Amino acid sequence: MKLALERGFYFPSCEIYSDSQAGFWEYGPTGLSLKNKFLELWRRELVRRDQMIEIDGSQIMSRSVFEASGHLESFADPIVKCTGCGATFRADRMISEAGGLEIPENAGLEEFDQAILQNGIRCAKCGHDLGPARRFNMMFRVGIGPDGEEAYLRPETCQSIFVDFPRIFKTMRGRLPLGIAQAGKSFRNEISPRQSLLRLREFYQAEIEVFCNPANLNDLEKFARLQDTVIRIQTGTEPKAMTCREAVQSGAVPSEFVAYYLGMLAEFYQKTGIDMERSRFRRLGDKEKAFYAEAAFDFEVETTTGWLELVACNYRSDYDLGCHARKSKEKFEVMDGDQKVLPHVFEISMGIDRSLYTILEHSLRDDRENERTVLSIVPYLAPVHVGVLSLVKKGGLREKTDEVFDSLKTKVDAFLDHSGAIGRRYRRLDEIGVPYALTVDHQTLEDGTVTIRERDSMEQRRIRLADVTGEITGLVSFP
Amino acid sequence: MKLALERGFYFPSCEIYSDSQAGFWEYGPTGLSLKNKFLELWRRELVRRDQMIEIDGSQIMSRSVFEASGHLESFADPIVKCTGCGATFRADRMISEAGGLEIPENAGLEEFDQAILQNGIRCAKCGHDLGPARRFNMMFRVGIGPDGEEAYLRPETCQSIFVDFPRIFKTMRGRLPLGIAQAGKSFRNEISPRQSLLRLREFYQAEIEVFCNPANLNDLEKFARLQDTVIRIQTGTEPKAMTCREAVQSGAVPSEFVAYYLGMLAEFYQKTGIDMERSRFRRLGDKEKAFYAEAAFDFEVETTTGWLELVACNYRSDYDLGCHARKSKEKFEVMDGDQKVLPHVFEISMGIDRSLYTILEHSLRDDRENERTVLSIVPYLAPVHVGVLSLVKKGGLREKTDEVFDSLKTKVDAFLDHSGAIGRRYRRLDEIGVPYALTVDHQTLEDGTVTIRERDSMEQRRIRLADVTGEITGLVSFP
Ligand SMILES: [Zn+2]
Ligand SMILES: [Zn+2]
Repeated sequence: MKLALERGFYFPSCEIYSDSQAGFWEYGPTGLSLKNKFLELWRRELVRRDQMIEIDGSQIMSRSVFEASGHLESFADPIVKCTGCGATFRADRMISEAGGLEIPENAGLEEFDQAILQNGIRCAKCGHDLGPARRFNMMFRVGIGPDGEEAYLRPETCQSIFVDFPRIFKTMRGRLPLGIAQAGKSFRNEISPRQSLLRLREFYQAEIEVFCNPANLNDLEKFARLQDTVIRIQTGTEPKAMTCREAVQSGAVPSEFVAYYLGMLAEFYQKTGIDMERSRFRRLGDKEKAFYAEAAFDFEVETTTGWLELVACNYRSDYDLGCHARKSKEKFEVMDGDQKVLPHVFEISMGIDRSLYTILEHSLRDDRENERTVLSIVPYLAPVHVGVLSLVKKGGLREKTDEVFDSLKTKVDAFLDHSGAIGRRYRRLDEIGVPYALTVDHQTLEDGTVTIRERDSMEQRRIRLADVTGEITGLVSFP
Repeated sequence: MKLALERGFYFPSCEIYSDSQAGFWEYGPTGLSLKNKFLELWRRELVRRDQMIEIDGSQIMSRSVFEASGHLESFADPIVKCTGCGATFRADRMISEAGGLEIPENAGLEEFDQAILQNGIRCAKCGHDLGPARRFNMMFRVGIGPDGEEAYLRPETCQSIFVDFPRIFKTMRGRLPLGIAQAGKSFRNEISPRQSLLRLREFYQAEIEVFCNPANLNDLEKFARLQDTVIRIQTGTEPKAMTCREAVQSGAVPSEFVAYYLGMLAEFYQKTGIDMERSRFRRLGDKEKAFYAEAAFDFEVETTTGWLELVACNYRSDYDLGCHARKSKEKFEVMDGDQKVLPHVFEISMGIDRSLYTILEHSLRDDRENERTVLSIVPYLAPVHVGVLSLVKKGGLREKTDEVFDSLKTKVDAFLDHSGAIGRRYRRLDEIGVPYALTVDHQTLEDGTVTIRERDSMEQRRIRLADVTGEITGLVSFP
């Protein structure tokens, strides 16, 4: 967190004002650069590789959308308000923390009231009695135009994908299975946002909805490519590593179709550099699943705050298209061969902010031997690809260094640094995960070479100036 | 517009529902791809080239921010409501359209009432009398948490930059002049949104705020690089082409500092492929300027809808930092050499949606001779870089084509097409601006070559399969 705040990864929004609200954060330059690269990897490894279609929809959407989707009625947290100090709490979390009792968030309100009564749970802040549990809708409402027509900030990006499906399928000459993807902001009026990027009120999602013919879930040509990919599936108490093929055969995953996308996701996260030995696809029980999901797997990763859900994978059946078809009277069926079908949906809903947090946490090393903190992030995700340093500023070295920097700066993310002891400058680059540093010294002027230092090994070698651009762009390019 | 709707550039949000609201649009796959590439060019040519810092802030911001910035009080349109049918109109536009009278939008309310009375202006819809003019604040309000704390969707991205300035300058070891950039969504509750991307309620901005020492506006080392760049400046009735140096010397532009950024912007738009002969930097008069601007230039481009403002360049002096410093009590002064200074701000506020619209309009050619519509977009901005086609599907051509496509698909934006007459497939690629098409034919299996077709000239030549990746990535790379 200290590193994040001091090195420009992320920091609280509106922090100079006393009415700043919890759950809103900003990405600084290093955090934003990491996010952009993470999204580019997502686009390459999932969207393009699987020939998906990506869209970018409006964040404010009409009331009808959420009437149809069920969010207006069901997307609500159980809350209780203190009769003394007026503080509001999530009922399920408060009961869990105070009484150790686990009540699912979608339970009936009377279950919360009973648990509070029977366990004598009181306000955590002032000790007074708590009022009755009620539902609080987590969508932010906005009013459009001078008459304030009711609309909402989307609580998940996927609703645009569902609503736009008829036009996209038609104009893009779609064929099942068809993946439609979207990365962007979503908004949830959380009662108790968590520290930093872990539970935000305004957050980034990258969602993929794969539309498919439910009759063909075990007849997927491209499954062959991923059948030997290893995924760690947890159906009981421990995750178990198995190939996608084994996952289907053992029944741990319900179909080739679902296993294919879990495999793809595993390969993607492998490339982000997080430690996959500390990951699992956890199959959710009935009480845990979202209200629309038929089968659900959470992709979770172990962090210092416990197991963190990075991706929710839901087989949503025809719930979404069916809802919007009924409410809008629009045609959502499409032809698959000579069969007319209302497509089912498999959703891969990725939390971007949490993924970035996990990448940072899994990359951070305290290298005591060399008295440095190192962010050992994979080079193609590094916020800054290369540092360009002058050993000293004098004797023409400054000008030469500027030249090297200018030749690189529009092609890769380069950072120019002239000031301070060279060792301290290297340490500063290590802290924000810069994988390579070029140093211009006196020898550079003599023989046209610079040193290149590698972050993790700290090894240095000399390369020719003429090779710098080719070498660096090669080293930091996506796999 | 037809092309935009049918080829996946953009289309109305929530269009399947009757309560969908005007002013909200979605980017389809081709539009989004163009937008992403436009932003990458912006990042390369402005942000990285000038060593700016880019951030990504929260869209929902606290009330205090807009109290300080003046938006709560001043960011309001003059509106009138019909006493008959209840329709609401922008007062200034209604008076201009009905009476041919130009009243600036920031005039006193009584001016609008008088103009309506004296010219007998009535409701454009039903002919009834209009009520008195009033101010309608264009910010969208949202309520945070269970008690609905007052906050707003930002009406311009720059407010995060101002509010975050103290932290960023400190943690990033900033030095004046320092550019801080941000691209993202902003929100304005417009009374009368215009067709398609031209006036949206939810829109994309790319804003740059350059913080500077007002004492050094004519002492800019890097001005030398751009002093001979030609810009078209309009201070009177006609734009006049001159170098940045001449613009400063003639007084058309107030300082080297401002001329430097106008020159940079001109070079950027040149690279987007819009026709710069139909562009101008128009210096605004006092009544036209935003309430915070000391000197202002609009970058405008001629389109079929008239002159369109793509960028607002405002010298905002210390208005913004001063406001936030007073309200927050936070320190906004920084050291410049041994001088303590409250930085002045020069803003480059770019409308992304309008820029994309203009690029599309300026690229669209009706090539009657060849019976085709061509989007002659520069290759590095093209939504799809390359089409990969099989001449026929049989005889192993389909498999070979898939192979070529697979080798390209994660590296560039490639589109695979097996079906339909080859001529028709080329035309479809021309319509979405695909600069190159590779066609696998029988000769490919014999000698390992494919044809490459160039969109604008329609010329074809053969290249070796081994050279395809290198050739295509070279042809579509950023300049
Ligand atoms: Zn209390
Ligand atoms: Zn009327």
